Amino acid sequence: MQYPDPIAKLIENYMKLPGIGNKNATRLAFFTIDMDDEAVTDFAKALVTAKRDLHYCQVCGNITESEPCNICLDQTRDQSKLIVVEQPKDVMSLEKMQEFHGLYHVLHGVLSPTEGTTPEEINIASLLKRLQTNEKIQEVILATNATPEGEATAMYLARLIKPAKIKVTRLAHGLAVGSDIEYADEMTLFRAIEGRQEI
Amino acid sequence: MQYPDPIAKLIENYMKLPGIGNKNATRLAFFTIDMDDEAVTDFAKALVTAKRDLHYCQVCGNITESEPCNICLDQTRDQSKLIVVEQPKDVMSLEKMQEFHGLYHVLHGVLSPTEGTTPEEINIASLLKRLQTNEKIQEVILATNATPEGEATAMYLARLIKPAKIKVTRLAHGLAVGSDIEYADEMTLFRAIEGRQEI
Repeated sequence: MQYPDPIAKLIENYMKLPGIGNKNATRLAFFTIDMDDEAVTDFAKALVTAKRDLHYCQVCGNITESEPCNICLDQTRDQSKLIVVEQPKDVMSLEKMQEFHGLYHVLHGVLSPTEGTTPEEINIASLLKRLQTNEKIQEVILATNATPEGEATAMYLARLIKPAKIKVTRLAHGLAVGSDIEYADEMTLFRAIEGRQEI
Repeated sequence: MQYPDPIAKLIENYMKLPGIGNKNATRLAFFTIDMDDEAVTDFAKALVTAKRDLHYCQVCGNITESEPCNICLDQTRDQSKLIVVEQPKDVMSLEKMQEFHGLYHVLHGVLSPTEGTTPEEINIASLLKRLQTNEKIQEVILATNATPEGEATAMYLARLIKPAKIKVTRLAHGLAVGSDIEYADEMTLFRAIEGRQEI
């Protein structure tokens, strides 16, 4: 005996989402059936609307409804600094900080020899074009993640951008605020000592 | 700065699902935007279709497209045995076994003093009515989970059903097939010894 077709199809669809296996998808499908009619309709609409109305800004690659995005459009922002991040989510994290008022560029990935991600597959060409055509940008802050792939991508970009006489910086590595030295890994401790500052 | 409205709404909707927090919902929302148009439409359709076309069988409480469900309708099944389970998923697990050919009754929950679930809130009244009106049922097999709530619900049902001179049984407790004694908890070992059988 199989599940009735409508629930089997719903389970199948939930399973397409990342990190959701068969058991979890089944649980979500049964939960869906117990939801209010309206809540299910809203969910379905939200899926279709998000897919239809959102796209990536052609200038910076960030997620947006308008073209270009609000950040690229906002001339009151500091046009001299540009932060390069891996994902649109990273833009949101940095914006929450409310301390950076410059521009962004979203790579949508990192270089990864193991996963076969080449420079052509991420937003590097558009970054270089942007730096060539926009003379206001004086500093590029590389904010890829502190992973081997993120580091390698930062190194690769630094080598490409530096010849254009643009200042290239990288986010500082060290102990997270509020963290214990006891639990810090060796690489982090090493970076924290290397980057020590006089007080 | 906030996420654009369509993605904020989608994140909100994903967060309504059980076990999905803010971070995970954000990840799923961004994943959705990167999916094919068709896949998103299919997903939305599957949600609405499942909610619209499925309901719980008025006889047994199992999930079904037709009324009554295929199991209740199938007169070739053994009408003398009825298994009581907590959830529709349990019916599926037992059907996969392909060894039981009787009927089912789905409680849609268990009695739980801590969560305040009373007998009126789960499918007990319909079970008793079914046993009263259907004289063919000779044995009720209580297959609620081996949790304190499942046990208590089984005990409660046994007390209600036994006076009607219907045989009431409970699934056996003991070591799972393929499991190590070393890793079995004390309660399971105790039940395994209590329920030991001559070979």
